[in-house]
Amino acid sequence: MNPLKNDTLIRALLRQPTPYTPVWVMRQAGRYLPEYNATRARAGSFLALCKTPAFAVEVTLQPLARFALDAAIVFSDILTIPDAMGLGLAFAEGEGPYFERPLRDERDIRKLRAPVPGEDLRYVLDTVRQARQALDGKVPLIGFCGSPYTLACYMIEGRGSTDFPAVKAMLRDRPELLHHILDVNCRAAIAYLNGQIEAGAQVIMIFDTWGGMLGAAEYRDFSLAYAKRVVQGLKREHQGARVPSIVFAKGAGHSLESIAASGCDAVGVDWTVDLRAARGRVGARVALQGNLDPDVLLAGPDAVRAGVAAVLAAFGSGSGHVFNLGHGISRHTPVDSMSALVDAVHEASRAYH
Amino acid sequence: MNPLKNDTLIRALLRQPTPYTPVWVMRQAGRYLPEYNATRARAGSFLALCKTPAFAVEVTLQPLARFALDAAIVFSDILTIPDAMGLGLAFAEGEGPYFERPLRDERDIRKLRAPVPGEDLRYVLDTVRQARQALDGKVPLIGFCGSPYTLACYMIEGRGSTDFPAVKAMLRDRPELLHHILDVNCRAAIAYLNGQIEAGAQVIMIFDTWGGMLGAAEYRDFSLAYAKRVVQGLKREHQGARVPSIVFAKGAGHSLESIAASGCDAVGVDWTVDLRAARGRVGARVALQGNLDPDVLLAGPDAVRAGVAAVLAAFGSGSGHVFNLGHGISRHTPVDSMSALVDAVHEASRAYH
Repeated sequence: MNPLKNDTLIRALLRQPTPYTPVWVMRQAGRYLPEYNATRARAGSFLALCKTPAFAVEVTLQPLARFALDAAIVFSDILTIPDAMGLGLAFAEGEGPYFERPLRDERDIRKLRAPVPGEDLRYVLDTVRQARQALDGKVPLIGFCGSPYTLACYMIEGRGSTDFPAVKAMLRDRPELLHHILDVNCRAAIAYLNGQIEAGAQVIMIFDTWGGMLGAAEYRDFSLAYAKRVVQGLKREHQGARVPSIVFAKGAGHSLESIAASGCDAVGVDWTVDLRAARGRVGARVALQGNLDPDVLLAGPDAVRAGVAAVLAAFGSGSGHVFNLGHGISRHTPVDSMSALVDAVHEASRAYH
Repeated sequence: MNPLKNDTLIRALLRQPTPYTPVWVMRQAGRYLPEYNATRARAGSFLALCKTPAFAVEVTLQPLARFALDAAIVFSDILTIPDAMGLGLAFAEGEGPYFERPLRDERDIRKLRAPVPGEDLRYVLDTVRQARQALDGKVPLIGFCGSPYTLACYMIEGRGSTDFPAVKAMLRDRPELLHHILDVNCRAAIAYLNGQIEAGAQVIMIFDTWGGMLGAAEYRDFSLAYAKRVVQGLKREHQGARVPSIVFAKGAGHSLESIAASGCDAVGVDWTVDLRAARGRVGARVALQGNLDPDVLLAGPDAVRAGVAAVLAAFGSGSGHVFNLGHGISRHTPVDSMSALVDAVHEASRAYH
């Protein structure tokens, strides 16, 4: 395959020297981009967009055409695995994802099988392959999936929630059933991510959206333990190149040390974490990715430049920082704010390298 | 005043040796107790209960009659200060608190004055005085208030929220106005808490419910900076006795170090924080209070004993731990779970002292 022309992201994730701080943005191919909305309209729905490689590749590349981003991330959804398990992923307009057949009885749970990536999730692997080829080495391609616990939350509850009562009830009353689901999800995630690596993903990111809401002991046993198993099951090299891994756990700033000890190369931190403090706690062990509050992008280019400066100053000098937002970019973001962000990171970060 | 017969809480907060780990519970005088509901019914409403010292003292003492708790906390609400500023505190049934006249225009904000505790909040000081007398030195009495930022959230938004859009808009567009509100709240909180100390409160706790949702820089500048000013404005001694202070910041496990540096004696941690890790981070500087997940109390006495054992083991040996829940007790808690909790803490903790 084509050699990388810009490997700044990979180097930063491995805490090697770089001339500036690389930047990409969670949900960078998203609804704030008019061309994304146009492609989505042609595809007919979000799901059709995800499941049709030609469309998914097109939107994967769109933000790269506008902004000098240092990475592409394959356009997909964190819930592809349970969808491939037969739970029936669907989207209610403006309401987020839900499953038509959530896991409610033990028989369904015992029947759960890890999908075979090359068959059941072939559309994702095809998207990875084609996106990698289309990128032609311009920047690295990031593959991803949801953490076993985050997948289980949606699979059991059926949708997002502020407190996941069905998940908490199972955790309390039938923990062995929850562990069974997590074990299947874990094996599914490892096979799926290694499939993405073989198809061309050069970095892997695991999104744990809901683990941070658990109590400390539950977080360790039901969320982090399985994310760690996924990290440790990943191919660390492919075709002679290191494939760095990033664990992003929203709301888990209390657990940076244990996440950093999972074996991942980098920890993604949300907007609530002070990067200076985070670096002090785990910077000797992992790179850090984050963490500008996405709301700053709604306040115009001057606010964006000030926000970028503050995040860069908080991390400080040296390598091991990948600039990103603290969570996904808002659909209401002006495109100019995104340009200002990328340019400001590239310009202002040189003083720190 | 009457000398303390049980000073375990005070000693633990000051990290002095104790024979066992003291325990109290946030919202221990609350709706899970039938006698609380009976008094509330007699008072007519939650607000009447707060504002009538005879009723407030009665419910303050109720949990002490049932359980061998090591502290009483004055029965009140975190929103008494803005209510005394004239914003009109009210409660919609089952919906939580709201203000009839939230701060929406600059003129109202500029007119804001810190209440005079002895006049505008006299009912709270009377409750403190009478509760202290009624306790007769059995256990220490905790006084409290909301943090300046948490008060501002309710004052501006008018009610609780998942994302506080009006607060975030002011923070972004008119930060000087928000700082003005915070400054008034800060002076109000200091006067109010010192009033409580003079009336007999032996420990002070500051509740920061919403600061943890802010971005790191905003948390530091708009929430922690003012909580710190409150801590540093408190009388540290009264009538020859140290008055320890506790800062509880929900969702701020990412910032334990900076909270611990505020000058408080103890940091309250929510259920998401691992106490072992927290002690490693700040245990040389402050005591820790917390942090069993209140949901465990819904799972019966065996689960409670296991949960208590896990929290005690996480903190480990030695002094400096006050047992509590990670947030307020649920109204659905069986009374037996609360007995099991208090007894389990007292019995199982002796091995750690």
